[in-house]
Amino acid sequence: TTDPTGEMNATESFIHHAMEIILEDAVKKATDVREKVCEWRSPEQLKELLDLELRDKGESESRVLQYCRDAIKYSVKTTHPRFFNQLYAGMDPYSMVGSFITEAITTSLYTYEVAPVFTLMEDTLLRKMIEMIGWDEGGDGIFNPGGSMSNMYAVNLARYRYCPDIKEVGLFAAKRLVILTSQEGHYSISKGAALLGIGTKNVYIGAVPFMVNATAGTTVLGAFDPIEEIADICEKYNLWLHVDACWGGAALMSKKHKHLLKGIHRVNSVAWNLHKMLMVPLQCSAFLVRDKTSLLQHCHSARATYLFQQDKFYDVSYDTGDKSVQCGRKPDAFKFWLMWKALGTTQLEQIVDRAIAMARLVCANVPVMDPEYSNVCFWYIPPSLRSVPHGPERWKKLHTVAPVVKERMMKKGSMMIGYQAHGDKPNFFRMVVISPQVSREDLNFVLDEIHNLGQDL
Amino acid sequence: TTDPTGEMNATESFIHHAMEIILEDAVKKATDVREKVCEWRSPEQLKELLDLELRDKGESESRVLQYCRDAIKYSVKTTHPRFFNQLYAGMDPYSMVGSFITEAITTSLYTYEVAPVFTLMEDTLLRKMIEMIGWDEGGDGIFNPGGSMSNMYAVNLARYRYCPDIKEVGLFAAKRLVILTSQEGHYSISKGAALLGIGTKNVYIGAVPFMVNATAGTTVLGAFDPIEEIADICEKYNLWLHVDACWGGAALMSKKHKHLLKGIHRVNSVAWNLHKMLMVPLQCSAFLVRDKTSLLQHCHSARATYLFQQDKFYDVSYDTGDKSVQCGRKPDAFKFWLMWKALGTTQLEQIVDRAIAMARLVCANVPVMDPEYSNVCFWYIPPSLRSVPHGPERWKKLHTVAPVVKERMMKKGSMMIGYQAHGDKPNFFRMVVISPQVSREDLNFVLDEIHNLGQDL
Repeated sequence: TTDPTGEMNATESFIHHAMEIILEDAVKKATDVREKVCEWRSPEQLKELLDLELRDKGESESRVLQYCRDAIKYSVKTTHPRFFNQLYAGMDPYSMVGSFITEAITTSLYTYEVAPVFTLMEDTLLRKMIEMIGWDEGGDGIFNPGGSMSNMYAVNLARYRYCPDIKEVGLFAAKRLVILTSQEGHYSISKGAALLGIGTKNVYIGAVPFMVNATAGTTVLGAFDPIEEIADICEKYNLWLHVDACWGGAALMSKKHKHLLKGIHRVNSVAWNLHKMLMVPLQCSAFLVRDKTSLLQHCHSARATYLFQQDKFYDVSYDTGDKSVQCGRKPDAFKFWLMWKALGTTQLEQIVDRAIAMARLVCANVPVMDPEYSNVCFWYIPPSLRSVPHGPERWKKLHTVAPVVKERMMKKGSMMIGYQAHGDKPNFFRMVVISPQVSREDLNFVLDEIHNLGQDL
Repeated sequence: TTDPTGEMNATESFIHHAMEIILEDAVKKATDVREKVCEWRSPEQLKELLDLELRDKGESESRVLQYCRDAIKYSVKTTHPRFFNQLYAGMDPYSMVGSFITEAITTSLYTYEVAPVFTLMEDTLLRKMIEMIGWDEGGDGIFNPGGSMSNMYAVNLARYRYCPDIKEVGLFAAKRLVILTSQEGHYSISKGAALLGIGTKNVYIGAVPFMVNATAGTTVLGAFDPIEEIADICEKYNLWLHVDACWGGAALMSKKHKHLLKGIHRVNSVAWNLHKMLMVPLQCSAFLVRDKTSLLQHCHSARATYLFQQDKFYDVSYDTGDKSVQCGRKPDAFKFWLMWKALGTTQLEQIVDRAIAMARLVCANVPVMDPEYSNVCFWYIPPSLRSVPHGPERWKKLHTVAPVVKERMMKKGSMMIGYQAHGDKPNFFRMVVISPQVSREDLNFVLDEIHNLGQDL
């Protein structure tokens, strides 16, 4: 049944062609500022354009390559210099190559046995990140699928430290536990509270607080909670202090901006996503804990005997799987490790410094306060509204401007910027600057283009 | 600061070289039966061989390419025809290419806006899988990072249906809830119970059961719970029935073997991993729910306004993010979609049928019962033990055989097979047959090689 050589020749040719398409369309064209950011189609149109149906019979190599081209063509180019829509953007070639390697060497990080290289690289990276946080006495950590998961790890560890019995007996006999966080904290804390049986209503108020969540870099405004002051209170009352630094953690790379996280060496745990400002392909997300008692292991272990045999011939402390709430877990750390090797800390620092500097450049042109980080939030006031007096009527009209401008920019494919309402504030734009490929021209373009698209509103 | 063209030339050349290395070392060499499965090094040796340290200064392209080669060289070749160690193996070129594309087009599946193509492909795939399960009235589902997460989704939905208030108020006032599962159920059910505040001791026994977990394809033995009979009881008592079909779900592709999951159309939810027997690169894992009331959405929604604006210009029901416990979520479905397009249902069926047939071929040569699935579990009795009478002494000695044979096969790099003790049974081998590249010669090799490596024990 197998003629490995013969079979591999066809396979090899397919992979080779596909790699050419990826390099041409998904790398070069996707990052070319002269190309469109997106090729907008409504769900109905896109369903007609793509032949989505899955059939009994397989299709030819040329058809499959065409599906690859189409998938790339109609996908949003998140690596394009004019994509400012999310907390990720830009293309780093090293971490992208790292991601190709982890996909080709498909494996899971639960045991050293099947992932020796990636286990050591994860360990190296966690130690380095812990060093940057400033936990001199050491710590532990785990890469996992996203910042929401990291925040849930934090809730679970905090609860476990507060009352280890909950792992076995549940919350049924427990006193009501609450989590304190700010209005601007990420919604994953609420989702975590719901999932973990604590309940969303027990985030904020009443009863026995067992954990405080501080945010370093909020999603919309890019604001930083004052960690030092919060740590003072948490130490006094022996509360677990977690810092959601998924977005803002990158500032730790920067001598100039790391003051934003002053006091982080005093906290119990940190969530830090490398796939945001540091441009590693999604996902590359670390949860870190200041602890020397194997809390991560004790809190999550299930001691599966088919993976974690204790009679293995190597040091089983290199099997990390029992620290995780997952079973299989991707070697995401490798992507960042390879990027770090290639760029060095110095260039990683430059990425952060440049992004924040560019965000401030935008602000030089519009009447907003300098942002703490690289989120630039602003309203566009169309000419027709400029003479309308301040008050509810003006705000109501202003609220409708951003959605229309967004629709127009996407249908044109010229750029992508997010918008949202916030508290009692009507819809405003949130432009997130990340990629080193973003030029001054791109920044000017954004403001001009918004005016072009919205001046008739 | 930016000369996009100039910058891209260096980048392009790096990516091009890296792609050549991936094709040569991580694809061709890794799947070549004449090459080693692994290049075993202890953690200490590997730390010396790899230059793991992360420095301030970036390193040259040639050094970075060497890191790529080394990472591949010392990684376990899970796609090699003689890798039988986990519930994943083999290399499918289409899903691998799909994974490269999702990495290059790095995006998150929370909104249609940033992932239009992948949103539709996920939807197509979920519908197709729901059709195969047999939920005629439709259903819902979500791809997520692994089977453990899928099983946790099931626990959470079952709990939410049982008592929706728990989402807001937690478990503090709830009656003790328990989950029923079998001894052989995967450990993620216990991990889920711990994480969700139910407690590991409430898996199995007592109080108010709200959910039953049946397993289709257990991890060690590949055994299937009788779904039809369990469904009879669950329907009678209105219990949520979840099927952990992470490993066994692939049998649904096969007319010959789908009887193993008879009754699955009656259950409430299913976890099904495509990265196991169907060979999609990790991770590609679906959670599916038989429901038309948007339970997935109601149970997990947090209505983040910065992502899920209701005044968008397109149909926001295509924004799937609020169904997830994650925020960012990878477009894993694309990998399987592309593979399915290329192979068609027919060839997917052949993969499953061949794997099970090959597993049974192994059993033709050793005195074991035919497996239900493609796990083959057996002891190797070295000559010195053959005359030892049955009893505790023989079992105690037998227990030490598999770990030594495993050590020897890994240090030689000739193949990889798992082992474990199970209940009161001493260590035995578990060989999992998946890849279509596995030949009869490979099967014979395994048995001969175990004898070669263990005959002196």
